[in-house]
Amino acid sequence: MTTSPTSELYNEYVQTMRRIADIRYASALLQWDQETYLPLKGASIRGQQIATLSEMAHRSFTDDKLGALLHELQSRQDLDPASRRNVELTSEDYDRQIKFSPAFVRQLTETVNKCFHSWLEARKGNDFNRFAPDLAKLIELKKEEATILGYQHHLYDALLNDHDKGSNVRLLDDVFSKVRKPLKEMLDKIMSAPQTDNSFLRRHYPKDKQWAFGMEVIKALGYDLDAGRQDISEHPFTINFNSHDVRITTRIDEHDLGNMVWSCIHETGHALYEQGLPEGAYGLPLGEPASYTIHESQSRLWENHIGRSRAFCEQWFPVLQRYFPEQLHDISPDTFYRGINRVEPSFIRTEADELTYHFHVMVRYDLEKLLLENAITTKDIPAYWNEHYRQYLGIQVPDDKKGCLQDVHWSHGSFGYFPTYSLGSFYAAQFYATAQKALPELDSQIQKGDTKALLDWLRNQVHRHGRMYTSEGLSLAVSGETLNIQHFLDYLQQKYSGIYQLRS
Amino acid sequence: MTTSPTSELYNEYVQTMRRIADIRYASALLQWDQETYLPLKGASIRGQQIATLSEMAHRSFTDDKLGALLHELQSRQDLDPASRRNVELTSEDYDRQIKFSPAFVRQLTETVNKCFHSWLEARKGNDFNRFAPDLAKLIELKKEEATILGYQHHLYDALLNDHDKGSNVRLLDDVFSKVRKPLKEMLDKIMSAPQTDNSFLRRHYPKDKQWAFGMEVIKALGYDLDAGRQDISEHPFTINFNSHDVRITTRIDEHDLGNMVWSCIHETGHALYEQGLPEGAYGLPLGEPASYTIHESQSRLWENHIGRSRAFCEQWFPVLQRYFPEQLHDISPDTFYRGINRVEPSFIRTEADELTYHFHVMVRYDLEKLLLENAITTKDIPAYWNEHYRQYLGIQVPDDKKGCLQDVHWSHGSFGYFPTYSLGSFYAAQFYATAQKALPELDSQIQKGDTKALLDWLRNQVHRHGRMYTSEGLSLAVSGETLNIQHFLDYLQQKYSGIYQLRS
Repeated sequence: MTTSPTSELYNEYVQTMRRIADIRYASALLQWDQETYLPLKGASIRGQQIATLSEMAHRSFTDDKLGALLHELQSRQDLDPASRRNVELTSEDYDRQIKFSPAFVRQLTETVNKCFHSWLEARKGNDFNRFAPDLAKLIELKKEEATILGYQHHLYDALLNDHDKGSNVRLLDDVFSKVRKPLKEMLDKIMSAPQTDNSFLRRHYPKDKQWAFGMEVIKALGYDLDAGRQDISEHPFTINFNSHDVRITTRIDEHDLGNMVWSCIHETGHALYEQGLPEGAYGLPLGEPASYTIHESQSRLWENHIGRSRAFCEQWFPVLQRYFPEQLHDISPDTFYRGINRVEPSFIRTEADELTYHFHVMVRYDLEKLLLENAITTKDIPAYWNEHYRQYLGIQVPDDKKGCLQDVHWSHGSFGYFPTYSLGSFYAAQFYATAQKALPELDSQIQKGDTKALLDWLRNQVHRHGRMYTSEGLSLAVSGETLNIQHFLDYLQQKYSGIYQLRS
Repeated sequence: MTTSPTSELYNEYVQTMRRIADIRYASALLQWDQETYLPLKGASIRGQQIATLSEMAHRSFTDDKLGALLHELQSRQDLDPASRRNVELTSEDYDRQIKFSPAFVRQLTETVNKCFHSWLEARKGNDFNRFAPDLAKLIELKKEEATILGYQHHLYDALLNDHDKGSNVRLLDDVFSKVRKPLKEMLDKIMSAPQTDNSFLRRHYPKDKQWAFGMEVIKALGYDLDAGRQDISEHPFTINFNSHDVRITTRIDEHDLGNMVWSCIHETGHALYEQGLPEGAYGLPLGEPASYTIHESQSRLWENHIGRSRAFCEQWFPVLQRYFPEQLHDISPDTFYRGINRVEPSFIRTEADELTYHFHVMVRYDLEKLLLENAITTKDIPAYWNEHYRQYLGIQVPDDKKGCLQDVHWSHGSFGYFPTYSLGSFYAAQFYATAQKALPELDSQIQKGDTKALLDWLRNQVHRHGRMYTSEGLSLAVSGETLNIQHFLDYLQQKYSGIYQLRS
């Protein structure tokens, strides 16, 4: 191997990575199908099929041959920068993956499977206690995983780093400590101001018209339906099989218009990112998103900074009225704008407004940290949860389903995921502030329903780089600074000052 | 290994086969998706993804370890009959598959790919000559394949055997020579009798109502929609991912009601078979269909013996009239029955009636044999084709698209497939004649729309056996005799005597 020309070795690496990608994306299609079109009785074998493909992808990726190839390629001086970066990132992934023995991977998969089913059972019975023992076992394995991966300061860092390279407890403690107080103060002020009305969103909106409106919006935002499609699923998600096949889903509740509209825009934000990744890099790191955090920054930017802006409403509310003349004839554009931005403490994270959302995340973050530190056990979760919802949001959680049983993540073994939701929102504000400076016409363009300039800017600033940068590195490249939560606080302050007539 | 208990070894065999099935069915899902929901631009990478999974399945199946395990299991005396049969059939498959070097498999895949694209090009240009050179190369490889597989009398036997174990040139020459003359005589008589009217099928039938009617029919026939689903595709097909997930597709032409109705029933016939396979045998031969021929016997039995019977019309024509009162108000049940059974020479095999259909197959069969014998070359195909359509059916083929370019099979390398269509029809008649004797109430049940007794009978006689028997063995088990084409001839004679007032 050591005498082969670099181009030949690199080509072998590319072919290997593409074959592994083929397996991974086949597994992704099994999952997409499971959430959209899988017949009821087909579900039992599907889990096994997905497990087999995941195992094969893992085995192919941790093959010694690939390790040797990567090692050799790293010693070569004649790789161009992009190729060098691909090799470097793959080597990092490889070094991380080979740390896990097949036995450990199998044990984790099995425990996750068990945990997922006891979570379903616990939800059905609305009783966290049925979930707590299996979750405790899973957390023990996640600790083992963190130990295997290694960390400098805190066990949790290893898991955070896995979702967003460079993320750690020190950074997140700092970020959350900086937003906690100002957000709480803003919330208190809002709660003592006259509330906006959003009851019109709960009128009856027929399914087919909601679907048609959603499709019109996602097309207008630039989502390429020749390189993707939208379907219905229980929980909206984005999934991709290459940059030419990026699919999204939505759900439709005939008595909740908002659910459909902003989930469509949110998933479109994710999908625009995936559709904008370099297409020649199929299977390679530079063809992948930078991190979960950056992914979320894209969905949040479109959902909130565009989709909930006054400019957007000016273009789209009249269209919406044409779809639903009876339901919306008595609603003014201003009422609509204020209604869709109503701030109000609530129980379910995914339904929360832009402000209270982060208290949901903070509770999860604190719990994950405490659980990994052994400072609390899984049995303590409901009490901790309910106490902090009272403290932060002033609400009394009525039961576990509306409380600590609401999200699937932990049952999947996803620890370290929740913080990316908040970080994504904060980066969204920072990137959007940068875009506004770079594109002085942006607001008036959006008023006219023209988001092309913004999309082009994002394609150029964010999408085309793939995994070239970490979240922090990308932030520096895009905005000239690392994460600065002031952009997010300013954005909220400005928005809610207008809506709730707050004094700063 | 030789000291391990048999049960342990058998279990290892089962687990290995299941993992291979997981890969195969993942590949099948990639194909299903390609035909139904794949976005336009996603197509280019999909071919590569399918190729990777196929290669992995092949590699896993031809692994030495599996070979050794099978060898050891075959020497064990303490296997129960079903397990023994599984091992025996897998060993046969294994011995066949390991004959092919990875290089040969890759060459075949690449040639098929090229051939498929030149077939598409040739169709676009309506010119067989553009397809002929690539097809010639593919045929050379198929000859090599036949040589590798081995045969006793004729090269073609190896390929026929691959689609239907035990099938060969001697058998097919005999069968076709027995049907050719009586079918031609029957056709001549029909063509000189007053023709039935089926023009009502070409009226305008809106898409959504056609869809709803089709769904009502397939449900009524016993297709379990909790273990399957129907979608739209360009060419109707059945595909399965296990016996609890068997999917069918149909197509809808608003000016061709018949196309949708009988393709639904045909695919339902295939699907009922797959849904009736032993469910515990996922990934094992006894969980698979007996042969392509038997598969086709099931689809034809439902499509023709049920779907085109007078009894079926009595139940379903009034329902159809309720769906399409304007289109069918002036049509009597008798006109309907006679119209849907109209016999008439035509160009396209898939649209042919039950009688002329087999002349289409005979032309393909003769051509495949002659090509493999080097008696003709691919350049000679159009002339041979057109000459025989004139001879058999008395029609002048206007161009290659309506002639020898109509089917995709050859471009996929499927030689030896077409005869299973005719054999399937002949077995369908034989099985149905047996069912009529076993179920004296069958006709009156069908008149009432009750096909449960028939389905139960087929489940018990055919479906539950999986691959236990060859086509011939199954025929013996079901009907007490090997293939007897007299059943088919009697069935047609009886049917058309009624419709066309033929004298025998």
